[in-house]
Amino acid sequence: MNAFLAALRERLGEAGLLAGGDLSAHEQDWRKRYPGRALAVARPASTDEVAAVLELCHAHRVPVVPQGGNTGLVGASTPDDSGRQLVLSLTRMKRIRGIDVANASLTAEAGCVLADVQAAAAEAGLLFPLSLAAEGSCTLGGNLATNAGGTQVLRYGNARELCLGLEVVTATGEVWQGLSGLRKDNTGYDLRDLFIGSEGTLGVITAATMKLYPQPRERLTALAACASLDDAVALLGLARERAGDALTGFEVMNRASLALVARELPQLHQPLGAAGWTVLLELSDAESAEHARDLFEGLLEAAVERGCVQDAAIAQNLQQAKTFWHLREAIPLAQAQAGLNIKHDISLPVSAIPGFVAEMDALLTAYLPGIEVIDFGHLGDGNLHYNVQAPAGVAPGEFLAAHEAAINGKVYDAVCRLGGSISAEHGIGRLKREELAMRKDPVALGLMRAIKKALDPQGLMNPERML
Amino acid sequence: MNAFLAALRERLGEAGLLAGGDLSAHEQDWRKRYPGRALAVARPASTDEVAAVLELCHAHRVPVVPQGGNTGLVGASTPDDSGRQLVLSLTRMKRIRGIDVANASLTAEAGCVLADVQAAAAEAGLLFPLSLAAEGSCTLGGNLATNAGGTQVLRYGNARELCLGLEVVTATGEVWQGLSGLRKDNTGYDLRDLFIGSEGTLGVITAATMKLYPQPRERLTALAACASLDDAVALLGLARERAGDALTGFEVMNRASLALVARELPQLHQPLGAAGWTVLLELSDAESAEHARDLFEGLLEAAVERGCVQDAAIAQNLQQAKTFWHLREAIPLAQAQAGLNIKHDISLPVSAIPGFVAEMDALLTAYLPGIEVIDFGHLGDGNLHYNVQAPAGVAPGEFLAAHEAAINGKVYDAVCRLGGSISAEHGIGRLKREELAMRKDPVALGLMRAIKKALDPQGLMNPERML
Repeated sequence: MNAFLAALRERLGEAGLLAGGDLSAHEQDWRKRYPGRALAVARPASTDEVAAVLELCHAHRVPVVPQGGNTGLVGASTPDDSGRQLVLSLTRMKRIRGIDVANASLTAEAGCVLADVQAAAAEAGLLFPLSLAAEGSCTLGGNLATNAGGTQVLRYGNARELCLGLEVVTATGEVWQGLSGLRKDNTGYDLRDLFIGSEGTLGVITAATMKLYPQPRERLTALAACASLDDAVALLGLARERAGDALTGFEVMNRASLALVARELPQLHQPLGAAGWTVLLELSDAESAEHARDLFEGLLEAAVERGCVQDAAIAQNLQQAKTFWHLREAIPLAQAQAGLNIKHDISLPVSAIPGFVAEMDALLTAYLPGIEVIDFGHLGDGNLHYNVQAPAGVAPGEFLAAHEAAINGKVYDAVCRLGGSISAEHGIGRLKREELAMRKDPVALGLMRAIKKALDPQGLMNPERML
Repeated sequence: MNAFLAALRERLGEAGLLAGGDLSAHEQDWRKRYPGRALAVARPASTDEVAAVLELCHAHRVPVVPQGGNTGLVGASTPDDSGRQLVLSLTRMKRIRGIDVANASLTAEAGCVLADVQAAAAEAGLLFPLSLAAEGSCTLGGNLATNAGGTQVLRYGNARELCLGLEVVTATGEVWQGLSGLRKDNTGYDLRDLFIGSEGTLGVITAATMKLYPQPRERLTALAACASLDDAVALLGLARERAGDALTGFEVMNRASLALVARELPQLHQPLGAAGWTVLLELSDAESAEHARDLFEGLLEAAVERGCVQDAAIAQNLQQAKTFWHLREAIPLAQAQAGLNIKHDISLPVSAIPGFVAEMDALLTAYLPGIEVIDFGHLGDGNLHYNVQAPAGVAPGEFLAAHEAAINGKVYDAVCRLGGSISAEHGIGRLKREELAMRKDPVALGLMRAIKKALDPQGLMNPERML
């Protein structure tokens, strides 16, 4: 190991290798679920240096854990506790390499913080729509390695759909120059999408060319009260039909989730009364503020007439729009304040969601009376955060110890039966690795293992994550 | 071989195996560039039968050529002339398995003709946007295996972007059940996109779940005359900015291409006078006919004011819109009538296109005075059909024999230097296999070969296509 570290230091310089002192920022995830111990932290500053690191790892058989902003939720970006895994931090590679306005694309290095990418696009008069809670510290490379979702997926897709091309260092230290500003390219296998979402298990993304969009002229937000989830699905259909692609957000929050916010964060104003389901809608309009407002008012009036909306409020200004969004974003904060809970990041066909929720709410209440389901998420994408809290008076820690496995089993059984996914946007990492092995189609698992072996024959890339 | 064919016949029945008689419809491509000879034609009627065919091929080491509507342009779906390759025709698998309106998705078998998929979606009140010239005979499976493009890519993407999930039979005859109506699913490697565009070299797509969209309320078409390609790029930027996603088509035609149409198809009315470049724009509006017309008129007026458009005409009715589109579609017909020419299906960053065209037109004219460039295509996607015709008085056949290799070299050299692609939407097949081996990033080629070997270790799936 000393020879390996000496070679690394020689190649990367002092700034490029942390091999002593407090490495905890790199050794554990931000939720502190996976404390680990790293052999060292390599901090290459260029693609060539990343290639040199992986070549050395390959030669010395050292396992590598690629790391971006380390904001992941599934334990995929921190080392295990063996002290044998090298953390490869991309955070020094943070150059915006270029913006091509006529081609509506931007090329940036993996370590760029997402908010900085958004800002660079905005400075050029364009929109980079990927947006999520961690955007102030997560990095573009991590967004791609995990195929991040967020709040704009309904219109713009996940990180995958926003990517035109990649630069990747392979497990053996070769550089694939796949950066490309092309919208169409049918020259061989889709390597780009194979690396996107592979959680660092096949190679290291060092840079990417991403799509940009025109900035909308106006963005409007509304809240709508629906009696049932069926009504919310009907509202979604109506909104799609009337607003088309102008519909950029469609979030739902069940009664319990807003009640929890009222309890834990009473300072937050809730403009509508309690409803079975509250929907947050966002419209982004290419034309004008007036057009956007007319469209939104027409849509909500039609929804009230059709009976799928009971009450609605359109934000009158940007500040009010922010408070609407803040209500939605406050749910995880209120949950954190209320203590541990059992989280599920699931997706289903939109048509299956009302049935799933009715069935599962009943099943869990029967299983443990008083249980509370905090259910919210991106209905437009079929993605729910279906989280389960302890009955009043039961300590959260004891609740998890006694019931987490059983409740996960019930939720995932139903999700799989209905053609859903056990991880809509957070990925697999260490958290859901065993669940994946049990629940994924066995032929798919076989194909995945064959690909892993073909591209990382020594099994050094982020081992024991995902597969 | 007899044992193999007997086993096949036993498994598939009489209707499922063509082993004598005239197989020419399956043995050569529709342009008759690749005459071949098949061992036989298997016509399985179900996924299980496809699996049985591939299992038998695997056991007997028989190479397989999957085939859909056989409308491809690169020789990927017909057998070579050895008489040893089995054609696996999917055309009996043509069931629409289901439509989920609330989820806006449709599941269909690989052999469904594209136009039938469009019709099924329309019957359910929704839009399946994939659209291309061969839609009356090409199949969904072929569309996915080649990642087909067409006229609606600007807004809706290629076949890849429209696909939610796949059912695939692997090279060894296993069935991967990856049908899914999910918009978000981060549970492992993106196998779906690996099979899409793999041209039958990794496995056989037997069914797919595809995205549907709301039908637009109104669709309007216009022609605009631009002095230069720079002006056309400026018009594209303006149209995106003002119309956002309502812009569903942006096609360009150079002066020579419309002059050729005027010569070869003089019965077609050309509404605008000859211009350096003529642009066909299409807007699809979710609101109303009136809104669409206001938007279009405002856009074209602004473009005239800005100086990037000299003259424009909006189609006054559906019939006129069809004649506008027909002008664009008539270019390949006029070319076919005028005789052989050297075709290039290339893509470039949109920003690089004006420079490429100016440089290449000059280079080719210097190389062979009198040469004619018929240049048209999907500017919005950066995709040009940059076709080269013989100078007047030179026989097309002789022109090709003498100059095709040199002209391809010049075109592809410039395309690659500018970060473009030698195959934007047609694929590789046999036609561009050698070109790919020379021009693709060598690390990418290495990764592709490793994947091919991992998933098709005996090399039986569509051998000598693409790789």
